[in-house]
Amino acid sequence: MKPLDLLQQSLHKRVLVEMKGGRSYRGVLDAFDQHLNLVLSSAEEVVKDVSTPKSGLTVLRGDSVIYVSP
Amino acid sequence: MKPLDLLQQSLHKRVLVEMKGGRSYRGVLDAFDQHLNLVLSSAEEVVKDVSTPKSGLTVLRGDSVIYVSP
Amino acid sequence: MKPLDLLQQSLHKRVLVEMKGGRSYRGVLDAFDQHLNLVLSSAEEVVKDVSTPKSGLTVLRGDSVIYVSP
Amino acid sequence: MKPLDLLQQSLHKRVLVEMKGGRSYRGVLDAFDQHLNLVLSSAEEVVKDVSTPKSGLTVLRGDSVIYVSP
Amino acid sequence: MKPLDLLQQSLHKRVLVEMKGGRSYRGVLDAFDQHLNLVLSSAEEVVKDVSTPKSGLTVLRGDSVIYVSP
Amino acid sequence: MKPLDLLQQSLHKRVLVEMKGGRSYRGVLDAFDQHLNLVLSSAEEVVKDVSTPKSGLTVLRGDSVIYVSP
Amino acid sequence: MKPLDLLQQSLHKRVLVEMKGGRSYRGVLDAFDQHLNLVLSSAEEVVKDVSTPKSGLTVLRGDSVIYVSP
Repeated sequence: MKPLDLLQQSLHKRVLVEMKGGRSYRGVLDAFDQHLNLVLSSAEEVVKDVSTPKSGLTVLRGDSVIYVSP
Repeated sequence: MKPLDLLQQSLHKRVLVEMKGGRSYRGVLDAFDQHLNLVLSSAEEVVKDVSTPKSGLTVLRGDSVIYVSP
Repeated sequence: MKPLDLLQQSLHKRVLVEMKGGRSYRGVLDAFDQHLNLVLSSAEEVVKDVSTPKSGLTVLRGDSVIYVSP
Repeated sequence: MKPLDLLQQSLHKRVLVEMKGGRSYRGVLDAFDQHLNLVLSSAEEVVKDVSTPKSGLTVLRGDSVIYVSP
Repeated sequence: MKPLDLLQQSLHKRVLVEMKGGRSYRGVLDAFDQHLNLVLSSAEEVVKDVSTPKSGLTVLRGDSVIYVSP
Repeated sequence: MKPLDLLQQSLHKRVLVEMKGGRSYRGVLDAFDQHLNLVLSSAEEVVKDVSTPKSGLTVLRGDSVIYVSP
Repeated sequence: MKPLDLLQQSLHKRVLVEMKGGRSYRGVLDAFDQHLNLVLSSAEEVVKDVSTPKSGLTVLRGDSVIYVSP
């Protein structure tokens, strides 16, 4: 199986996304594509231990993603 | 559904766009493409808490986008 | 409509181009392509509030463009 | 043989992954693709000698990978 | 017209090329391609106001080019 | 002959690989591909003059390679 | 003529290659390809005015090249 097939297992579950530049996001993974563009719902952004809730759907550009984990 | 299909739901609504390099933009999402190039109308730019209104249509290059959220 | 179709509306009008690395340009948009390579005429370059007029046509590489606005 | 054919030999074995930005990961290599996107299980993240265990499957974006070794 | 068609007008004329990393070059534009790879003859390199003449043909990689102007 | 054809001459010989970010590797070149992804055996990593031996096969992502030399 | 056709004129001649990150190389250009991957023989590396001779063939990844000149 390929990495993106395994990411399928995290669909509709809460994930942690670490981004380049020191940001991270927690939220429910609603969608992703082959570039690792991601959509999170019920997301919160964490920058330097400060957490900010995000309303609606947050679209993250895959190019800035370092990793996705549960 | 794919991330860019879900971004379709934000079309013609106000969004927050976080960019690489510490800039962010608020405005109405008038258009986007598969590279996440975006067009905002009635936009304002925020750099280090200083907000600058932008007249007309602002075209943002997708390559500098980190995320788009409502 | 797609972002680059909307950029068409700025053709032959004055635009502000913000570039990576802290440069910006003001000038008349004479041409652009799908990479957001741009050609400005009657351009001036602004780096740290110092403005330098540029004679002739200035070709900006799209890869360094952050945004284009009126 | 090509590099990714040889990486096949590390499948389902513990690997060390060094990433750009000073992070590294240890875990069992469950999947990889031609971009060097990787999936690790039983992973731990090491940043500046601080180790954090990660539950479930960690998907690492190939673009940030520097090397993979046993 | 497209940006690279307009660059055609600068062929065999003196241009200023601003590069990422603080370098710039002045010289006669002898050739370019769609990546904005450039060839200058009679070039001089300027780094922090220090000018160095270059003999022969200087091939600049397009990927580092910010702009080309007369 | 093309660069990667000449790299073929270093196959199964010891090489020095300089990477972006200040790392270098010495080892036997077991495989490479057109992206300059490399596999080294009997490798040692050198960061700031500190050498660390690596067991097994080390897969280096081509994107971080600066040069390969004997 | 295109830039890479003109680089053909430097084949088997001594060139100076300036790389991103402050390195430069002098050597005989034995091969190049469309990515500006280069092979130098009888090369020496110069970092901060310290010159190091390189034995055998040095393969430079095009992605790090800024310019090639005689």
